[in-house]
Amino acid sequence: MPGKDDKQYVHAVALVSAFLFGASSLWRIRQISQERERKARSGQANPLTVGYVREGSVSRRCMRALAPSTPYLMSFLRGLEYPCDPTIRPEGFIALCVAENKLVMDVLSDRLQHSSATQAAFSDPTVYCYNSFLGLPVARQAAAYFLAKRFLLTEQQHEVTLDQALRRIRPDHIGICAGAGAALNSLFYLLGDEGDACLIPAPYYAAFESDMSVVSGIIPFAVHMANPTTGPSESELDLAYMEAKSQGLNPRFLLITNPNNPLGIIYKRDVLARAVTWARKRKVHSIFDEIYALSTHEKYGHGFESIIKILDNKLDDDVHFVWSVSKDFGASGLRVGVLYSQNETFLVGLSNLNVFSGVSHPIQMVVSELLTDDDFVDLYLDESRARLKQSYLICIEKLEEMVLPFVPVEAGQFVYVDFSSLLPEKTVAWEQRLSQLLIDYGRVILTPGESQRERMPGMFRICYAWVTPDVLKIGMERLSRIVGKIRRMDWSDLNESSLAGVLAVGFDR
Amino acid sequence: MPGKDDKQYVHAVALVSAFLFGASSLWRIRQISQERERKARSGQANPLTVGYVREGSVSRRCMRALAPSTPYLMSFLRGLEYPCDPTIRPEGFIALCVAENKLVMDVLSDRLQHSSATQAAFSDPTVYCYNSFLGLPVARQAAAYFLAKRFLLTEQQHEVTLDQALRRIRPDHIGICAGAGAALNSLFYLLGDEGDACLIPAPYYAAFESDMSVVSGIIPFAVHMANPTTGPSESELDLAYMEAKSQGLNPRFLLITNPNNPLGIIYKRDVLARAVTWARKRKVHSIFDEIYALSTHEKYGHGFESIIKILDNKLDDDVHFVWSVSKDFGASGLRVGVLYSQNETFLVGLSNLNVFSGVSHPIQMVVSELLTDDDFVDLYLDESRARLKQSYLICIEKLEEMVLPFVPVEAGQFVYVDFSSLLPEKTVAWEQRLSQLLIDYGRVILTPGESQRERMPGMFRICYAWVTPDVLKIGMERLSRIVGKIRRMDWSDLNESSLAGVLAVGFDR
Repeated sequence: MPGKDDKQYVHAVALVSAFLFGASSLWRIRQISQERERKARSGQANPLTVGYVREGSVSRRCMRALAPSTPYLMSFLRGLEYPCDPTIRPEGFIALCVAENKLVMDVLSDRLQHSSATQAAFSDPTVYCYNSFLGLPVARQAAAYFLAKRFLLTEQQHEVTLDQALRRIRPDHIGICAGAGAALNSLFYLLGDEGDACLIPAPYYAAFESDMSVVSGIIPFAVHMANPTTGPSESELDLAYMEAKSQGLNPRFLLITNPNNPLGIIYKRDVLARAVTWARKRKVHSIFDEIYALSTHEKYGHGFESIIKILDNKLDDDVHFVWSVSKDFGASGLRVGVLYSQNETFLVGLSNLNVFSGVSHPIQMVVSELLTDDDFVDLYLDESRARLKQSYLICIEKLEEMVLPFVPVEAGQFVYVDFSSLLPEKTVAWEQRLSQLLIDYGRVILTPGESQRERMPGMFRICYAWVTPDVLKIGMERLSRIVGKIRRMDWSDLNESSLAGVLAVGFDR
Repeated sequence: MPGKDDKQYVHAVALVSAFLFGASSLWRIRQISQERERKARSGQANPLTVGYVREGSVSRRCMRALAPSTPYLMSFLRGLEYPCDPTIRPEGFIALCVAENKLVMDVLSDRLQHSSATQAAFSDPTVYCYNSFLGLPVARQAAAYFLAKRFLLTEQQHEVTLDQALRRIRPDHIGICAGAGAALNSLFYLLGDEGDACLIPAPYYAAFESDMSVVSGIIPFAVHMANPTTGPSESELDLAYMEAKSQGLNPRFLLITNPNNPLGIIYKRDVLARAVTWARKRKVHSIFDEIYALSTHEKYGHGFESIIKILDNKLDDDVHFVWSVSKDFGASGLRVGVLYSQNETFLVGLSNLNVFSGVSHPIQMVVSELLTDDDFVDLYLDESRARLKQSYLICIEKLEEMVLPFVPVEAGQFVYVDFSSLLPEKTVAWEQRLSQLLIDYGRVILTPGESQRERMPGMFRICYAWVTPDVLKIGMERLSRIVGKIRRMDWSDLNESSLAGVLAVGFDR
């Protein structure tokens, strides 16, 4: 389908042009910053004085907003400039570093563009006017229903009435925010003070650091575990807490992503219940990011239980929940996040803070209708599970062939792979060299463990839902060829010419 | 039309229920806060220690987010519970305190719900994916075109091509934000540091204080003028600057709203040019909020010139521009603001900060199509001008009858009225008493001057575009009757029974 391919290309080019200014400016700013820092060290200017900032024409706190939200953004942008296309550009770049599920986009797009609800969303006078900045009443009610049905009352899934749902989850306790990132920012801002710390089981989603620091100034602090796939034990949490304290930090949050990104696993009920007990003992807020909750690969028996259910909805003032349509509905572009908290003081603050993070009312109407359309949601999730699993199988078939260990996936759009056997030494420098080798000669971009605060060098996250299965196959075959070469050759001999065959994948099928 | 009335009532009730939780919580929190403060003063607890905040389960900075964004919000909410309706509830409350133009909503709603662009906005795969957080390329381009055509190249309005427009205003310099409030918050956050001050010609829009302080911690500082309608002179700016300095503040911003809210006037070109020259000399950022730019009451000869035009588009690093669809298109519910700045360091920061204030992509598509549909925009603005003027005339006819002085309006949805002749003493206490009298016995809610940092007690803003002309007529007649009573009676005799006739308006027509 050349038409579709062209469209993808145009889309990619548009995205590039969108980012390009940012990237080039960033580069220039980094240069300026570095020069200023050098000057500062040599006593010529102090980059942190008001005078300097005036001259530099932005504020001191702007400086912490200048870094890209993920460290691998530049590589990703490079990849977008010349993306792989099985038909016309099989040698192009393949970005396997973006946790965005594009596999089911057609199903959602069909639903929304042909829905009478979409048109209706622009006819209701309510949508043009001011309303509560916590969200339209209809949207908060729809979100409460959705959380009750899909997260709390999952056993009686087919019998949940609106009445039942709203008796358990109060719409008053829901905030509709411009994405999960905005929801997290608000939690960190309104529940923590500048310089407080947040414990996060590592490895973790790279952009969390940006989400909590850019505005809120919260310091991320990794919780390392003997076995990250089983989640943190109380003693591991204690250890991290003590370490943070010994560094003069004030741990005020525990942030848990379940199902986990980047591991693709689901934490057991007991682990989470104990983590909350631990946090409550330490007077630490727990934030549960469950944005992959409905992306389990199996419909039944996956073992996922929301914290809302585990605590029997007793979140109290100190447990908070975040979900969005970005991951489970592959719709990050809609910018709709759902925040659930029973901390009513926090919610009053949110009603003001959310003036800056409100979601467009017609979109709130459209999403409300979507979340309460049980038949469609069931159908969509079935399709999503099937397609995620299909792409996951493409991935691991090749990983098994390469004899690369990975964490068996229970949910999500990524698999966490151990490439460490390929590194001559287990160091970050070698991980970076491998990462660059994959980009330069394989044109495959993965998320390096380092950016996710992984302690063991050589771990990479592979996102398998951002590209089509065809492109994924090419990417995995390229990885396989590179891995073969690395195993057979000296690193000093790995270069453009010795690895030339890698990019022939797709041409030679 | 009882059907329509019912719908309005349902809408109002929905709005009430949306706010009610916030309002009641707010009340409770204020009580708690006050008690804590009392305890703190008596040494029992310090409300600003971390320990207290932990117990209180929110952060210190959450406390500054607890106040409502406008001081008159509670009265407005009270009014919403029982709104006036000429047919079925002529004695209901009439809110003339909200600057939201509902008069042309039908025209916009018709356009958007029947547009093929609306459906198309949900079919383009781009809308479901991540993109630049400064906005979709298409939206930034549309906004650049719109600013070039409607703000910069206004003389050659009918000849501006896309090419011409984009050569003057670069889409790279545009940020699409979740409303003008979000745009302002980002400017204050990224260009100023906590505790810096912002000079604002007074009287000014009450919620500016919240916009700049809740997250950014910028301190509003009123610039008082001999004649507010002519705008600040250099010596008045100097005086305010010195005053701020003498109070230990660091003035870093000058915020100008043109056309002005609440005055409804348009500043002259020279005044603005001189203000920018002054700000540049003082190394102060100028922010121009021009959200009422296209709401002039006359199509030609109104004298409005955008700062973009006045400076011949040379904004440089220190002049910044904000516009949104909220006022000129009566669409605050769409939450779409446009930020234009040539400060590229700032824009890099914004691309990260806007992760929390991104606009839903389908809405960006819909608005892009709207802003570039010249024929519709022309038609819409003609209609908007006509309806605004009609309601304004209803207002001032009655004001003239009451012999209450007002500032003759050139643009916007409000008129600034001098009720001071009714006050026995020119004090804030008497202004508050008059305001309460109007609410209690006239069920008319105006915006008091005090909330807009007006120095002279007795000034009120009347917003005439939030209610229908019929409701407006009832409201103005009630005002007229109250004013008559106040002039004829002793304040001690003004009570429910002596003012009973006021609410008979509408019944007795």
